[in-house]
Amino acid sequence: VIALDDVVAAQERLRGVANRTPVLRSRTLDERCSAEVFVKSESFQRSGSFKFRGAYNRISSLSADERERGVVTFSSGNHAQAVALAASLVGTKAVVVMPKDAPKAKAAATKGYGAEVVQYDRYREDREALGRALADERGLTLVPPFDDPMVMAGQGTAALELIQEVENLDVLLVPVGGGGLIAGSATAAKALLPDCRVIGVEPEAGDDTRRSLRAGRRVRLPEVPRTIADGLQLQSPGELPFEVNRRLVDDVVVVSDQEIVRAMGFLFERMKVVAEPSGAVGVAALLSSKVDARNLRVGVILSGGNVAADRFAHLISGGNTSLTM
Amino acid sequence: VIALDDVVAAQERLRGVANRTPVLRSRTLDERCSAEVFVKSESFQRSGSFKFRGAYNRISSLSADERERGVVTFSSGNHAQAVALAASLVGTKAVVVMPKDAPKAKAAATKGYGAEVVQYDRYREDREALGRALADERGLTLVPPFDDPMVMAGQGTAALELIQEVENLDVLLVPVGGGGLIAGSATAAKALLPDCRVIGVEPEAGDDTRRSLRAGRRVRLPEVPRTIADGLQLQSPGELPFEVNRRLVDDVVVVSDQEIVRAMGFLFERMKVVAEPSGAVGVAALLSSKVDARNLRVGVILSGGNVAADRFAHLISGGNTSLTM
Repeated sequence: VIALDDVVAAQERLRGVANRTPVLRSRTLDERCSAEVFVKSESFQRSGSFKFRGAYNRISSLSADERERGVVTFSSGNHAQAVALAASLVGTKAVVVMPKDAPKAKAAATKGYGAEVVQYDRYREDREALGRALADERGLTLVPPFDDPMVMAGQGTAALELIQEVENLDVLLVPVGGGGLIAGSATAAKALLPDCRVIGVEPEAGDDTRRSLRAGRRVRLPEVPRTIADGLQLQSPGELPFEVNRRLVDDVVVVSDQEIVRAMGFLFERMKVVAEPSGAVGVAALLSSKVDARNLRVGVILSGGNVAADRFAHLISGGNTSLTM
Repeated sequence: VIALDDVVAAQERLRGVANRTPVLRSRTLDERCSAEVFVKSESFQRSGSFKFRGAYNRISSLSADERERGVVTFSSGNHAQAVALAASLVGTKAVVVMPKDAPKAKAAATKGYGAEVVQYDRYREDREALGRALADERGLTLVPPFDDPMVMAGQGTAALELIQEVENLDVLLVPVGGGGLIAGSATAAKALLPDCRVIGVEPEAGDDTRRSLRAGRRVRLPEVPRTIADGLQLQSPGELPFEVNRRLVDDVVVVSDQEIVRAMGFLFERMKVVAEPSGAVGVAALLSSKVDARNLRVGVILSGGNVAADRFAHLISGGNTSLTM
């Protein structure tokens, strides 16, 4: 589906546009895991998450004609903001299909990047169908959140940068939602460091990729998983990412919401960095010993930091049930 | 008291030991102030604040004989942790005089760096006298939090690094407690950029340096200021820092606790960095228009990020009255 060359080409397109995000260390984290841990912090990426990498890689590769017409995506999360920002930088128009009841801050952030927001009723309308209808009607190019080789290759630049900076890694931990980030990351990691184990991390309630890898085919969870990790609330793996991940991902481990909140608190207090719930799952897996890292060099992709301060406050104070969306 | 050479010499001593902390940017912050703002983020400094710079500069300069005997300081805050860490790196012993009722986490962190904690009763004993008695009794070298040329020169390396990285600055905003950080910073800034205005920021309730500069002599506030900015709760400026600051500091502005909390939230949500209340005052001054930054290049020292996640949660949720200590 994709190869190292695609990730390297994406890195070229992103040069001078995406941030080269810092790799953070913590003596305390190293001691707790008896390991050397390198945290690639995509919280500091433009738009606040790794999603900018894939979106910009795709949108900057549009033909002149496609660029003239614009792009469309359906998402209420980080991908929407990333597409909106990438489109504005490339000088094309973005349409984002978003539920009517999405948090006002998310719609505002997306509009702030210059995108048009089209609202839909999440109980009565199918966002994907609506997105495709808009694409057909207006001649827009669909930029999917993960099921696209250019998007996957772009996401892989996070791992590529990490490996370029720290060189050897024995293990790489990557959050798994639709699977685009880990597919791109595993493509880069396995090509450059064949002995590096690539381990996905999912929320306990949303372990669709773990189940799918075990089954050898894409499994669909019966309902939208209830977890605070809103970026990872997928019912089934993306088709193209799964083709990559079934071959390259060594294992998937799961973490509970409580373990995620603890990791967010650790990252806040010890490493002074903001992680959204989905972004903290790698560190959560380490702190809760879901991965045996002893005496190893461990890379962790902290995928993003888009969490409102009051939501963080609520989670840290122990109130998480009302915020599973 | 100190000159640029002292700050440059401190930078040499700190090379490879202190972190070269990142300078963070935010498009939103730039837009809000119509300025270019460069935030030097000492949250990522070792021990979580700029205090490591001064402590290490002082302690690494001990004679062999002094090093043999050890150091002592009185502080329950960032300076204590910085002294403990610097002493352990230099291979000397640190004694920290701390109130019995200091937060357990602070005592634990200080002990975690290998220091001996000596407790005292804050209602019945004088910590400074106790510290001096210990110094005499055991032959320890006192490492004061700000009233020391080596400490002041070390703190100035934060501004020196910032200026080396971003070159021209029209304004530099620096938090003011005892005045050591701004004294060192102003020494570096005025020597390298004579036209750069150096502006201190104090909490409204603790404006001892502003009053002192206006009076032309050190003024003492009648009581310990009530503010969430626990690192800036001084009743009067330090003697040596004031000698520097009366000549080099152009102005001091003040911010309210509410403005500080808003800045902490902004830094969290937009810049993904943890700032303790004292650390956020510079950004608070910008966001609340206490400084006219229009069309200027503005440096801000974000002095530290040592705030517990649950305290942050409490502050963001609007509960600050019970946490003024």
